[in-house]
Amino acid sequence: MLSDFKAPDSSAVGKWCFALAKELWPINRSLTGEGVRTTLARLKEELPNLVVHEVPSGTSAFDWIVPDEWTIRDAYIEDQAGNRIVDFREHNLHVLGYSEPVDKWLDLKDLQSHLYSQPDQPEAIPYITSYYKRRWGFCLSEQQRLSLPDGKYRAVIDSDLKPGVLNYGELLIQGETEEEIFLSTYVCHPSMANNELSGPVVTTAVAKWLSAQPALKYSYRIVLIPETIGSVVYLSKNIPTLKSRTYAGYNISCIGDDRCYSFLPSRAGNTIADAVAQHVLKHIDPAFKRYTWLDRGSDERQYCAPGADLPVATIMRSKYGQYPEYHTSLDCLGTVVTAEGLAGGFGALRAALNILEKDFVPRVTTIGEPQLGKRGLYPDLSQKGSGNSVRDMMNMISYCDGTRSLFEIAEVINVSFERLLDLSKPLVQEGLLVSAAGKT
Amino acid sequence: MLSDFKAPDSSAVGKWCFALAKELWPINRSLTGEGVRTTLARLKEELPNLVVHEVPSGTSAFDWIVPDEWTIRDAYIEDQAGNRIVDFREHNLHVLGYSEPVDKWLDLKDLQSHLYSQPDQPEAIPYITSYYKRRWGFCLSEQQRLSLPDGKYRAVIDSDLKPGVLNYGELLIQGETEEEIFLSTYVCHPSMANNELSGPVVTTAVAKWLSAQPALKYSYRIVLIPETIGSVVYLSKNIPTLKSRTYAGYNISCIGDDRCYSFLPSRAGNTIADAVAQHVLKHIDPAFKRYTWLDRGSDERQYCAPGADLPVATIMRSKYGQYPEYHTSLDCLGTVVTAEGLAGGFGALRAALNILEKDFVPRVTTIGEPQLGKRGLYPDLSQKGSGNSVRDMMNMISYCDGTRSLFEIAEVINVSFERLLDLSKPLVQEGLLVSAAGKT
Amino acid sequence: MLSDFKAPDSSAVGKWCFALAKELWPINRSLTGEGVRTTLARLKEELPNLVVHEVPSGTSAFDWIVPDEWTIRDAYIEDQAGNRIVDFREHNLHVLGYSEPVDKWLDLKDLQSHLYSQPDQPEAIPYITSYYKRRWGFCLSEQQRLSLPDGKYRAVIDSDLKPGVLNYGELLIQGETEEEIFLSTYVCHPSMANNELSGPVVTTAVAKWLSAQPALKYSYRIVLIPETIGSVVYLSKNIPTLKSRTYAGYNISCIGDDRCYSFLPSRAGNTIADAVAQHVLKHIDPAFKRYTWLDRGSDERQYCAPGADLPVATIMRSKYGQYPEYHTSLDCLGTVVTAEGLAGGFGALRAALNILEKDFVPRVTTIGEPQLGKRGLYPDLSQKGSGNSVRDMMNMISYCDGTRSLFEIAEVINVSFERLLDLSKPLVQEGLLVSAAGKT
Repeated sequence: MLSDFKAPDSSAVGKWCFALAKELWPINRSLTGEGVRTTLARLKEELPNLVVHEVPSGTSAFDWIVPDEWTIRDAYIEDQAGNRIVDFREHNLHVLGYSEPVDKWLDLKDLQSHLYSQPDQPEAIPYITSYYKRRWGFCLSEQQRLSLPDGKYRAVIDSDLKPGVLNYGELLIQGETEEEIFLSTYVCHPSMANNELSGPVVTTAVAKWLSAQPALKYSYRIVLIPETIGSVVYLSKNIPTLKSRTYAGYNISCIGDDRCYSFLPSRAGNTIADAVAQHVLKHIDPAFKRYTWLDRGSDERQYCAPGADLPVATIMRSKYGQYPEYHTSLDCLGTVVTAEGLAGGFGALRAALNILEKDFVPRVTTIGEPQLGKRGLYPDLSQKGSGNSVRDMMNMISYCDGTRSLFEIAEVINVSFERLLDLSKPLVQEGLLVSAAGKT
Repeated sequence: MLSDFKAPDSSAVGKWCFALAKELWPINRSLTGEGVRTTLARLKEELPNLVVHEVPSGTSAFDWIVPDEWTIRDAYIEDQAGNRIVDFREHNLHVLGYSEPVDKWLDLKDLQSHLYSQPDQPEAIPYITSYYKRRWGFCLSEQQRLSLPDGKYRAVIDSDLKPGVLNYGELLIQGETEEEIFLSTYVCHPSMANNELSGPVVTTAVAKWLSAQPALKYSYRIVLIPETIGSVVYLSKNIPTLKSRTYAGYNISCIGDDRCYSFLPSRAGNTIADAVAQHVLKHIDPAFKRYTWLDRGSDERQYCAPGADLPVATIMRSKYGQYPEYHTSLDCLGTVVTAEGLAGGFGALRAALNILEKDFVPRVTTIGEPQLGKRGLYPDLSQKGSGNSVRDMMNMISYCDGTRSLFEIAEVINVSFERLLDLSKPLVQEGLLVSAAGKT
Repeated sequence: MLSDFKAPDSSAVGKWCFALAKELWPINRSLTGEGVRTTLARLKEELPNLVVHEVPSGTSAFDWIVPDEWTIRDAYIEDQAGNRIVDFREHNLHVLGYSEPVDKWLDLKDLQSHLYSQPDQPEAIPYITSYYKRRWGFCLSEQQRLSLPDGKYRAVIDSDLKPGVLNYGELLIQGETEEEIFLSTYVCHPSMANNELSGPVVTTAVAKWLSAQPALKYSYRIVLIPETIGSVVYLSKNIPTLKSRTYAGYNISCIGDDRCYSFLPSRAGNTIADAVAQHVLKHIDPAFKRYTWLDRGSDERQYCAPGADLPVATIMRSKYGQYPEYHTSLDCLGTVVTAEGLAGGFGALRAALNILEKDFVPRVTTIGEPQLGKRGLYPDLSQKGSGNSVRDMMNMISYCDGTRSLFEIAEVINVSFERLLDLSKPLVQEGLLVSAAGKT
């Protein structure tokens, strides 16, 4: 559908992401297992250099141990008439994540302790997991739960929990320097749209756009992992590299609806990743939502933890936990996540990476203002108001003292980096602006 | 009444303080003289290690000289019928502080220049002194003053002003280190309750509580002095010690009513004493009153003066000068100062000292979040909202990077130090948190 | 009119400035030419040490070249009946600044492209120039323009544009140190009052006041120049001296109406010139207008440009571009600029220079508060409220720790420097305050 990612239109990318999300929707992802592998295999078709790693169950990673691999083949509750009244084949949220196998008849009363619903959203099937404590269970709507007649029910879960592997994908894109931009998203959520098919599909689009660039200043390290255990494992295997090379990073999650933009800072809060993300969002939507580190809840918890301390911030649309459909069967493609929402998320991330790539420290080559009139860059008639049209350009020049990057100047004069980059081009061509020593 | 101060209930301490204040109420304290000595002798019964010092009149202390000692035996105004219409025996505020002796008959007109009243509070006897200029005078209510009929009056003040001593009390409590917490209050105010019987009685309770502790990290230096000249004298005799040892300090005044909490900073404003006081008050009452250094008016004027520069802040209930009864006969026990008010003041001071004693710099021993579920410290089922119950603990851990103390973390995540200390205990036991090098 | 400038009354200075402005009003100033020379010659009568410099056309100054000199003798538009309907002799704004010579008959339609008006102010003749592109033109009110009947008109401009000189005035006043205060204003505007006869006349008054002082701590460098090209030329000839000697500076423009006070910062924003200007304006009028560097538009554009970086701020009354009469024939003496307005501008500048001249770093010579009562500087009777009268003095003393200048203390305690200087005098006399090492 979209053959050239070199300079794609955001709207086309949004549609491309939406189509990919529809393909990935039915796959039952979890921390481990076939669903993750199928998902990564499909993404590797888009990103041929994606490497799929596997880490055996039982492997230690800091304070954690890689759990057994979960295989789920079927799961249902049958009534005495032989009707499947709750059926994993209808919605893969119906089974409690990491359920151990079971096959037995129970009274409704005994079944209740294995049923999970969300009373405050009676029509939704909640997304619930029990990764590290052995349980079995079914998730269903509160409405259905209340309507179950007394009687006997057969609970069947055809699953395995046994040593296997944890999988994750890793894509390295080489730039001019060894300094890296780190991008991370997750592939462990079953059929939900914003949290979390939006993350992997937008990350894939970003990776395709980066791969299509003729030159990149930074190298890129992009990972698609199961949440928490995946990031802990990835950190445990790569921490010296990550700590020495990472210039900036973004955790990519909940980036597909079109209701708002959201920012969650790194733990430090003042890294270049934080500053750039806020700049981009402010110029897309001044009313974007600013969360704090205390509102965190995704893999920044690991990447920014003491001892890791990576400069990883998060750009989102509606944040996890902050939209009603979160972690339920209501988080759907079409109703929650749209092509427009995905396009907006992609656009924001691309704008942020563009700043990181294109920023430089400009220095004006003359003392006092340059005489721009003689170069056709300034009105040649002076009447009150005549300078307004060149105000942004003059403000920019006034700060090009070799101590601030163009991005920092954009922040000081409150103009988007994109506009300043455009304004700087003729001045660079005229030799009035040069790149100062230091970061260019 | 309260035999064990090891971990007393604040409310019991409030009652204890109130009873002690009632005992001390009638004593006529001034800068110097018998009243101060009687007061310190009573407090020494509570604090056997209290040392009562004396400094001779005429002693130089920086820019000041210790004044003559004032002895007051009787003072009254008699009318021609022989009625004592103003009588020191009825209220010791009736005599102008440091009045020289007099015994003469005057016309009302001539007497007026020796009468002091508070026109804006017509029913109150004002508290007025003339320490450094020789005068004699009587203080009375404006109502009474206006009702005096013309005629002759006999003014009698049976007092002495002659070389003697200035007294103050000093209590040293040895802790594990030589670093000291400095506490100062005053014993120079006659019968007034908030300013200032509240200070000495609450300070005495705090000293008893400290003395009852099995171990203290810091040493404590506690002084009970006459205001201004007492603190100047104390500074002049102890400044090298104070400057080299004082880690934090509190001036204790106006700490006995139950109407509000108040904070007045040190001159520097950013010492640990300031930070801890504000933390404690914010968690007791978010609406506590914040004053500035420009609102000062007690012995912090000396302790924080240029050249002294001690880290001394002030925790108060209703601040001097800011409540209507201040420095009048209306500042009474029962109406202004109550057991509840004293309990609150004691509680705030104890909470502040607890932070100073118990603070340490925690460091998490793993990279990434620890796996708390396997230790029973984290919900083992993941459903939306399930992490809320452990949010404070997780926020705390996320900042345990060995660069911030637990108190600083409490400030960052806006949770009381007391709660964080409780939350840290199981994590320390599990070996997940250790005390980092540096201040522990 | 005002013979002694040693300690003049501001109001008398305002009148003096107004009278001088009236004299200078009719002169047709421009970037170069006779008008500038006549103006400087008149000012040299007031400031005998003023040196008038000349710089030849064609001289390079950084990115600029000194333009040809413009001589204008006459300019008018004549109708077919021989009436001068637009006449330079009536208002020197009628000719487009730097118009090249012309003498020809045109249809109204062809004349229109040489006519300039201000449609949003139909009664005003706008001030318009074309310094660096050859044009000819007339400025007239929109009302008049719309009323011109069709027909033929004769356009006559009797002018020259040929190599000559650019002139500027420079006055050096020697103080005790080589460190300089730099003051700059301009002499290139024709008949307009606030922008810009107010600048040169107030600057002349300030220079006369400085010259009359028996002693000055700083040396003063005062320049009267054409805007932009003048400041670029001055910078190009003096930049090593300016950079090494300038302690603070003010650009002086729009300082003659009585409607408000305005402040525009240096590019750095935090220089002593900035701090002092804001202090002065705050204490004259707390509602003074604060502009930012992004609102700039006068010679600070050059003085604060990268590479120049001089600490030059601007104190104004109504800022250029911010009052309706700006750059039109409505900017008149009497209606816009008044003696009161000029007096206020002079007063603000003098107050700022006074701070720079008189500031010192006070250190109290005792530890603890000094005993001021024995010196008659403190009330000798203590009653509630009795300390209020000396509150500013006590606050000042409490900050005299040898780390802050008196000006910095004035800022901290929010009292005017002028008042603190008065309060400090008896304390200096008593030996309680001394000047600390460092800047005095």
